[in-house]
Amino acid sequence: MRKRKKHGKEQALKALGDAMRHRRVDLKLTQEEVGKAAKLHRTYVTDIENGLRNVSFLTLMRLAEALHCPLSLLMIETERQDGWEM
Amino acid sequence: MRKRKKHGKEQALKALGDAMRHRRVDLKLTQEEVGKAAKLHRTYVTDIENGLRNVSFLTLMRLAEALHCPLSLLMIETERQDGWEM
Repeated sequence: MRKRKKHGKEQALKALGDAMRHRRVDLKLTQEEVGKAAKLHRTYVTDIENGLRNVSFLTLMRLAEALHCPLSLLMIETERQDGWEM
Repeated sequence: MRKRKKHGKEQALKALGDAMRHRRVDLKLTQEEVGKAAKLHRTYVTDIENGLRNVSFLTLMRLAEALHCPLSLLMIETERQDGWEM
């Protein structure tokens, strides 16, 4: 079982934002394109990538779809950013 | 790449709830115990398991911690419930 290191909410949101940004940049998509596909305003995508929004599960699902990957993959990357350990 | 089948929000929330319930039952925990660990009311945990709540990312993180597993694992199980395909 993996255990998460102690950290604040801000760090978890930042890790999620970083994972999303990395995925988007890998796909050579703009925040506007991701926003359009996920039915979110571009500035909202910016905020998420900057760790400023605590998004809901359904929004996460739409974002994962816009980023052409399962949500579990984004979570794996988020946990990696966030310093989970095996 | 895996592609998600067309489905409603309700089905995605139901899949999340089912994944959480399975994990909790596997651990022989009550909804009250999970709620206490995640700082949520027992009835809120009930609602989540019944697919009636669109929880936030930070709440999902707390629930995963209460269920002693990384959030990515819960998402993998959610996607399996929700009928993702390889």
